[in-house]
Amino acid sequence: MLICCENKEGVAGQISLIAEALKTKGRIAVLSHNNADGDTLGSCIAACIALQKLGKDVSMIYEEDFPENMSDIRTGHDFYMLLPPGDDSALERKWDAIAVFDAADPKLLGRRAKLLEKAEFVVNIDHHISNYCFGDLNIVDADASSTAEIVYQLIEELGVPLDHDMALAIYAGICTDTGGFSYSNTTAVCHEIAARTLMFGIDVANLRFKFFDAISIGKLHCHGYVANTLKLHEGGKCAIVVVSAATLAELGATGEDCEGLVNIGRNIVGVKVSMFAREVRPGEFRINLRSRGDVDVSAIARLLDGGGHRSAAGCTIKAAPSEVEAILLGALREVCN
Amino acid sequence: MLICCENKEGVAGQISLIAEALKTKGRIAVLSHNNADGDTLGSCIAACIALQKLGKDVSMIYEEDFPENMSDIRTGHDFYMLLPPGDDSALERKWDAIAVFDAADPKLLGRRAKLLEKAEFVVNIDHHISNYCFGDLNIVDADASSTAEIVYQLIEELGVPLDHDMALAIYAGICTDTGGFSYSNTTAVCHEIAARTLMFGIDVANLRFKFFDAISIGKLHCHGYVANTLKLHEGGKCAIVVVSAATLAELGATGEDCEGLVNIGRNIVGVKVSMFAREVRPGEFRINLRSRGDVDVSAIARLLDGGGHRSAAGCTIKAAPSEVEAILLGALREVCN
Repeated sequence: MLICCENKEGVAGQISLIAEALKTKGRIAVLSHNNADGDTLGSCIAACIALQKLGKDVSMIYEEDFPENMSDIRTGHDFYMLLPPGDDSALERKWDAIAVFDAADPKLLGRRAKLLEKAEFVVNIDHHISNYCFGDLNIVDADASSTAEIVYQLIEELGVPLDHDMALAIYAGICTDTGGFSYSNTTAVCHEIAARTLMFGIDVANLRFKFFDAISIGKLHCHGYVANTLKLHEGGKCAIVVVSAATLAELGATGEDCEGLVNIGRNIVGVKVSMFAREVRPGEFRINLRSRGDVDVSAIARLLDGGGHRSAAGCTIKAAPSEVEAILLGALREVCN
Repeated sequence: MLICCENKEGVAGQISLIAEALKTKGRIAVLSHNNADGDTLGSCIAACIALQKLGKDVSMIYEEDFPENMSDIRTGHDFYMLLPPGDDSALERKWDAIAVFDAADPKLLGRRAKLLEKAEFVVNIDHHISNYCFGDLNIVDADASSTAEIVYQLIEELGVPLDHDMALAIYAGICTDTGGFSYSNTTAVCHEIAARTLMFGIDVANLRFKFFDAISIGKLHCHGYVANTLKLHEGGKCAIVVVSAATLAELGATGEDCEGLVNIGRNIVGVKVSMFAREVRPGEFRINLRSRGDVDVSAIARLLDGGGHRSAAGCTIKAAPSEVEAILLGALREVCN
């Protein structure tokens, strides 16, 4: 679904419009979203390289260090500009255009959101259905696997031949946002672009290890705890894990170590709904919900004042550790009956 | 590396030769290897569909049920012929040609190996460097990601337009043999072919779940045991897990549940060598060795009368559970010093 796009000819026409507009600009700021992932970073880096090759004065302005597993896509270029903590003077500079990649909401730009207020011209390129269409020119194509997929087309339209570093960045964006070409957003187009990027000698095995498989010993211990304490309910259709703050402290686990643990239950054969509860403050649990199949877990989340999507949702509940399981099962039964 | 191929024009010329030869045959038996994986099954199924479309009398003869996670690629065709246990009468039939896919050694054909002895014409298509080149016409291309990649070219050469079921089978072969497009054998060609198969409406998310993520509760408990008992040695560079027969019995785990558990250690950041020891008989341990980086684990395996490749090897040792760790560390140190 094409969420927003000013051009009647659709994405291709709009990409052409944006390419023409960017060609007329001299100084361009490129913005990734905070809590950055491979898609926002890969999209920004590839766009910056292409714009630099066209002679533009480009800066990729970001305000959090790259995540460790994305270090390889930060290739040697001079456009990286990390906003120093507490010092916004870099934002005072005058830009002819601001280009934002993969950010559905200006709030995700943190302190850099203020750049949009006084900007002369804002380009907004994204694939999230929830995008606010805050640009002067927007492409928000929810049918694209990733923003990097759109950026690949933009680079073609700009007439810049792909090189190794752009290919690496585009590969990273598509690969991470499709879960290694495994999610339902994986299309023939994803594989076609991946094929072209691999012609530049991308070290697939090394990247894939860093993107998906590399695990800290702390996170491994969390995995072990989940594997050993996970309980099946409703005839094996529902998996629940509850982890108290005391257990997390014992395991030496951080909140980051708990990311994705809800998928362990979801991957068990026969499980339709997986629930992971983590005590974030005494008596307060953050709940992650995932489904495989028919159950709409956002309905469960809404019952508990949370929200989300059909297959991935979340909420926060106040309860003692011993009460959490019963509360979650109660909500599940209310939704399913 | 092209291991064997009678044609001087290389793979393309040889595929053309084989296609021409098969077109002249009426009754064709297609053989997968035992302990079947997605590549041998996908290759055979795609080849059978294509040959049937050319009007051939084709049977895919196999002697073990399809693994559960490959059930979706067994689409509705009439060429499947499961060899009944203890009854080889089906092998007595006369075939004009035998086509073997993904089997490096006739031993991997089990009882069907006898078909080769009296065969008039044998085609051998594979990508394993260790292939014996036992056919009358062979393509053994170790540069191909998978046998399915070669079969895709063969189908093109036969002039049969791809359809959904062939696309599904080819996708399964390439996807499983490249670890979901993540191993170092993943090439631009893999992605190009994947792109074409996805145009037939392949349910990527469902297949990928079955191929890689689906886990039984028994295997999950093995994961948990490994995660909690894994020990790091040599300053975090070596991970070792030893599982006694008693523990396996307690966990209710089968040998199959232990498959791939050596990779848990290998995925820990900083680990160069991962060792997994499983007691298969009282006082006898099967050892799986994996490396990431410089260490040649086949050298460790050879010290202990085993063998394998640089990054994946194995051996069997006789020892008490309490002695295994010291034996493995001793061998590691001997190889690395």
